Amino acid sequence: MLFDLKDHIRSIKDFPKQGIMFRDITTLLKNPVAVNYTLDRLLEYSTGKNITKVVGIESRGFIFGSLLANKLDAGFVPARKPGKLPAETVSASYELEYGADKIEIHKDAINKNDRVLLHDDLLATGGTAKAACEVIEKLNGKIILLSFIIELTFLNGIRKLNGFDVRSIIKYDSED
Amino acid sequence: MLFDLKDHIRSIKDFPKQGIMFRDITTLLKNPVAVNYTLDRLLEYSTGKNITKVVGIESRGFIFGSLLANKLDAGFVPARKPGKLPAETVSASYELEYGADKIEIHKDAINKNDRVLLHDDLLATGGTAKAACEVIEKLNGKIILLSFIIELTFLNGIRKLNGFDVRSIIKYDSED
Repeated sequence: MLFDLKDHIRSIKDFPKQGIMFRDITTLLKNPVAVNYTLDRLLEYSTGKNITKVVGIESRGFIFGSLLANKLDAGFVPARKPGKLPAETVSASYELEYGADKIEIHKDAINKNDRVLLHDDLLATGGTAKAACEVIEKLNGKIILLSFIIELTFLNGIRKLNGFDVRSIIKYDSED
Repeated sequence: MLFDLKDHIRSIKDFPKQGIMFRDITTLLKNPVAVNYTLDRLLEYSTGKNITKVVGIESRGFIFGSLLANKLDAGFVPARKPGKLPAETVSASYELEYGADKIEIHKDAINKNDRVLLHDDLLATGGTAKAACEVIEKLNGKIILLSFIIELTFLNGIRKLNGFDVRSIIKYDSED
């Protein structure tokens, strides 16, 4: 491959805590060529599927989520942590290592029969993405595709997303 | 005006607390026509100024920040709350009603002589934007323009941003 997107991802040891290798896309974001390359790959997955809404997960999912929505001529819908969205929301919970958290979407953001692309920068354990799918389905949206820039395959998040069309550009099979 | 962007902003009373009228852009975001209109206005301010980096303030500033960077063929740089960015950062503090908070930018995200557009969805008291400007200047970036979708003129945020070129599409002169 002439252009290797992995060269534009920075790996940072022990962030946010010991034993975790953080995959940092800020080095990609500051390079417009790498951004266009990433966007083109994500559009290969999503073009021609009549997507009407792109849901981006707070907050890094807002970056390519809004770019995808704009290119696909679809609406952009932010999925946010509790208490951030001001109007009536629908939510779903997901487990964390210790405790649980929630993801919320405005009730009026997804219409019945909306064809939804869910986007986040990274697929790890899949908990947040699965909760976002639950909310979209509660709102009667049809989930067409889930797209990620990076997938940490060793965390097996895809297992939680069984039955959905899940795509990612870059895969890491270990913390190394 | 045939197209009034204010029609696409939802005003929510007493959010996040009593006495505040929250200006909600999620109703704008879900409409691709309103997004393109907003983007075109923001591009009128920024096109032809040789912007090399667009800094978007977490997290709603990521949405049009990334769209602007892509259209201007500039790099995108997230300005984030403390502890979110994994590599070495530079930060500045700003006052809140009770206490203070900080905004951080990766040290390697802005180069000397970068021509910077700072973007956020809303200009209120200007504290966050001013702190972000301080960080950009610590990194020797040149601040060319600050652009916002909405400005709450009665909070006089522009006074804190004296000396900068500040543009906003929509102005509200009271909480009503």
